[in-house]
Order: sequence, then structure tokens, then C-alpha cells
Amino acid sequence: MIIAVIGDSSCSLEEARLAEAVGEQLAERGATVICGGLGGVMEAVCHGSKSKGGLTVGVLPGEDSSMANPYVDIPIVTGVGYARNMAVVKSAGAVIAIGGSYGTLSELAYALKRGIPVIGLNTWSLSRNGQEDGSIIRVDSAVGAVDKAISLAKSSVGYG
Amino acid sequence: MIIAVIGDSSCSLEEARLAEAVGEQLAERGATVICGGLGGVMEAVCHGSKSKGGLTVGVLPGEDSSMANPYVDIPIVTGVGYARNMAVVKSAGAVIAIGGSYGTLSELAYALKRGIPVIGLNTWSLSRNGQEDGSIIRVDSAVGAVDKAISLAKSSVGYG
Amino acid sequence: MIIAVIGDSSCSLEEARLAEAVGEQLAERGATVICGGLGGVMEAVCHGSKSKGGLTVGVLPGEDSSMANPYVDIPIVTGVGYARNMAVVKSAGAVIAIGGSYGTLSELAYALKRGIPVIGLNTWSLSRNGQEDGSIIRVDSAVGAVDKAISLAKSSVGYG
Amino acid sequence: MIIAVIGDSSCSLEEARLAEAVGEQLAERGATVICGGLGGVMEAVCHGSKSKGGLTVGVLPGEDSSMANPYVDIPIVTGVGYARNMAVVKSAGAVIAIGGSYGTLSELAYALKRGIPVIGLNTWSLSRNGQEDGSIIRVDSAVGAVDKAISLAKSSVGYG
Repeated sequence: MIIAVIGDSSCSLEEARLAEAVGEQLAERGATVICGGLGGVMEAVCHGSKSKGGLTVGVLPGEDSSMANPYVDIPIVTGVGYARNMAVVKSAGAVIAIGGSYGTLSELAYALKRGIPVIGLNTWSLSRNGQEDGSIIRVDSAVGAVDKAISLAKSSVGYG
Repeated sequence: MIIAVIGDSSCSLEEARLAEAVGEQLAERGATVICGGLGGVMEAVCHGSKSKGGLTVGVLPGEDSSMANPYVDIPIVTGVGYARNMAVVKSAGAVIAIGGSYGTLSELAYALKRGIPVIGLNTWSLSRNGQEDGSIIRVDSAVGAVDKAISLAKSSVGYG
Repeated sequence: MIIAVIGDSSCSLEEARLAEAVGEQLAERGATVICGGLGGVMEAVCHGSKSKGGLTVGVLPGEDSSMANPYVDIPIVTGVGYARNMAVVKSAGAVIAIGGSYGTLSELAYALKRGIPVIGLNTWSLSRNGQEDGSIIRVDSAVGAVDKAISLAKSSVGYG
Repeated sequence: MIIAVIGDSSCSLEEARLAEAVGEQLAERGATVICGGLGGVMEAVCHGSKSKGGLTVGVLPGEDSSMANPYVDIPIVTGVGYARNMAVVKSAGAVIAIGGSYGTLSELAYALKRGIPVIGLNTWSLSRNGQEDGSIIRVDSAVGAVDKAISLAKSSVGYG
């Protein structure tokens, strides 16, 4: 099972700790982490996963793997810039969003469009015409996020 | 000057009327419309533009131009699926969002990430950690949207 | 009708002259030029087209339109790097290749895969297992290239 | 170390046997296989790798992993169509081409443009203006291909 973890390349300490814990939990449950492969939340989740013997995939925007954080096992060098945001979420059975800026927003938009479940930890809230969009499943801990992600991935369109 | 107009391929009558009026106004000001080339808001803005003699570009997700609405002058067949959403906004000096679903959300996310101004008509509202993100410039009429878009495009990173 | 012209961003004087003449001919026949928007062959074909009042589209690899040559009317800023090579050829009813290096090779490969006719002026020759692949239609003049391109585009899969 | 293996989704029995043997050899040398994830040469190389306990990555063109062959461990669902051809080769330290049609031609074009070594088994030959392009390194056995690929990947731009 592959779970995507999305978030910004610069993040708060609290977000880094959440991402690290999410990575640890995913590794302990046998789930592969896929992410954008850079720093911040992406590096923290990869570090957490590797500390528990997990497997990590980093889907990179550029032309070589030099930007990959050191905890990426399999760097995918896409050459398609931030279109790689689609590949991060479409490859996963579920997506965990931690904090995040506009890049993360594009990723959760693609996931929601595709029907892939998105679990949110301190991430974006969305509304249209004054009505909240309830598609992002809110949780308040790393364990809660991983529980939800693994449970939902089993019946997800994105689950291979 | 090129202005992007984004919105869903299925839309309300009110959104279609707004898009049509935006297309008319852009043509009268001499601005080229770029959009995703399909139906709904995209078709209405192209129809409005053509009714006033404007030029329209449709950046398509698929493998040929058969999906283009009949008011697209220049269909760009990208072959990159919804990664074409990036091309729609990055090619423009400013973006006008009308209504919209998750595809539109990915487009405005890419525009905001890149620093391209986004003007919103009945579109998404964003907040993080309980704080509203004020990046989308709200207007309440087609004329107001076009005024803002043309004015902001002149100093935009995306303006060629 | 949209015709793609492909070739390298650095080219010989002879290739530049051929591309200029191809641009002139396409404009005189009322065909829009689509190309990769950069220098060399791409700049020469745009210059030729503009000198005869034609319309030019440049599909760019980067994040803004600053790399576009000055004769591009409509810069499409894709953000997908050299995946833009697909968009150049798939948007066209036929492709004219002039000289060219490996980027051009990827473009004609995508065109041939899609069944879009490729007309070649001093460009790549292909063979497999000692047998020549005859898919590229050889011509030896700008007029010959444009005649073939316009004639074949009328029945092409890529013709919108 | 990651080595790309490229070839058509429909292939001859001889090509399938070569791909299978290349997969076995790469697994025995500890190299991860990356490929386009579909059938034919892609399936054969993944099957060979798995038969010797290797790790396989399939970079898919579509919107979900249903098209992946059964021997892909890590399906990357790109959503960018045949722009995924870039990701296949750019993620690798070297590329082994076995037979192949126009999709394979686009892949080796991208690899050569980027300076990633390409080793060829019964694949395309290229020439320009009557002069052969010698960039593809010809070998005549699976072992020879894997020896060359691993040796060249160590100093390749694409090697992470």
C-alpha cells in the first residue's frame, strides 16, 4: 500500500514532528511513503519512515535527483516541474496533508478531483459561496491520520 | 495581453452569463482569452469573446482537439492530462476564476504559487488554521473582474 | 489550420533560411505556426511568418514567457519542461522538421506515434534492425515542405 | 542504483527473452528496474527482476494503476500521459533499450538530450544528413547490456 504525504518544503517544528510521526507509523504498518521528495514536511516524513525501516519514494519536479532529501529511497525524476504534484497523489491510495502552502493546495485539489481520500492535519480549509467543503477529513494526531489513511486506501480508486 | 478564465465544465446559468460577459469585455479591451478549452465556463467565455471579435486559446488535456468547444480559435493539444491546468494559468498575466470545482482549485493554487493575480467571482475561499487567506481578489461583476485583471496583468510575472 | 515547425534552438544559416521560408509560405497560405517558442529554427520560422502577417504560437518549456523569441504572438507557458514537446506536435495537423537534435527527435517520435504526418528537411533518418523507417516524408525545399504539410494536415488525426 | 529498461508494449518473443534476462541480471546486481509499467518488454523485465528478488518501479501514463503489469512493485501514476516517458529515463543512471517503437524512440531521445547513457539491443539506429549518430551503445546480449549500464550509471548525470 502506498500513502502520499504532502506539505511544504519549509514548515514549522510542529509540522515536522507530525510528519516524522506519520512516517514512523506508516513504516510500522508496512505502507510505502510517496511524497514530493524535497525538504520540510517531505524530508521529515521520509526520515520518520526510514527510522522504522520503511520504503520512501520521492517524486521530484526537476531534471535530476540532486534536490532529493537524503531519506528518499527511490527518487523519481519527472522533468515535468510542478505537474509532478499530480503524480504524488494519484500514485497513492490516500493522502495525508500536513500544513502546506499553495503547492500542497494544488495536490489536495488533484486528489479530491480524482476521488482519492485526503486526511488533513492543520491544513487548508475550503469553502464555496459561504459553504464549507467537507471533503478533507480532519484529524488531530499522526496516529489518527495514519489509521484513517490506511483504512480508506483499501477501497480507494488510487489503490493498486 | 493574455488573461486566463477558469471554471468548471459544468456550471450554473448565472456562471455562464458571467463568463460570457467576461469574454465580451476582454475582447473589447483587446485581451486574448486563454482557458481549458472545454465546456461550461470555458465555452461561455470563448463564446463571449468571439461575439466581440476576440481571440481565444483552449489548452486541452487530451490527445486531440475533438473536445474543444466550437469557440476556441487555437486549440493547444497538450497530451499531459490535467497538468494542462498549469499551462492555462502560467500563460496569463492574470486569472479570473468563475465558480469552479476541484480542477479550478488546482489552477488557482498554481497561479497563487507563481504569484499571478487571481480575481474571483463566486469562487473558492481558502483558509489555514482558522485564518482566511486573502490572496484571491474578490469582485462582484464581470466588468469589475476584467478591470482588475487587465490592471494587474500589466505588472504580473506572467505577463509577456 | 495549425502546422508545427520543429528544429533546434541553435542551427546553421541554411537551416535558418529554410525555416524563414517555411514561415513565409505558411503565413501566405493562411496557416498558423506552432513551435517550441525559443531561438534558432523556432525563431526563424516565427520571423518568416510575421514578415508575411501570419500568426505564431510558441509552446514554452519554462515558468514564464521571458524565453520566447520576439516573433511569438501567443506564448504558451506550460511549466512542464520538455514535456511541452508533445504539445507542439499534437496541436498540429502536420509537422515540418528542419535539421534538429535530440529534442527534435523526441518531437518527431511523438508525432509518428500519434499518426501525425512528419515532413523532413535535412532531419533525422531512422532505422531498426538494418531496415530504414520510411515514415518521415522527405522533401528538399521550403515550398515542397509546406505543400505536403498543408495537403496532409487536411486528413490528419491532429487536424482540428 | 536505478536502471531504466525501455521497449514496446508489444514485442517479439526474442525481445521478451532479452528483457527477462536483463531483469534477472539487474536484480542479481542489486539494481532497481524502472520502466513504463505496461506489457511487452516492460512486463518481461519486471518478471525477470522479480524472479530474482529485485525491486521494480512502473511509471504509468494514465490515471490509475490498473494498467500496471503484475510484476510492478511500485506503480507511479503520473496523470501526464506519454510525458511519463521523460520520467522513466531521467530517473535512471543508464537506459537499456530493447527493440521498441516510436514511444521508445521518444524515450531514448530524452535520455540522449540529457546525457544519460543509452545501451541498445536490437533498437533504433539514428543518422543525420547521411552520418550515423553513434550515441547509442550497441551490445548483443543481456549480460553485456547490464554490464555496460551499471558501469556507466556510476558516473551518469542521472545517477542519484
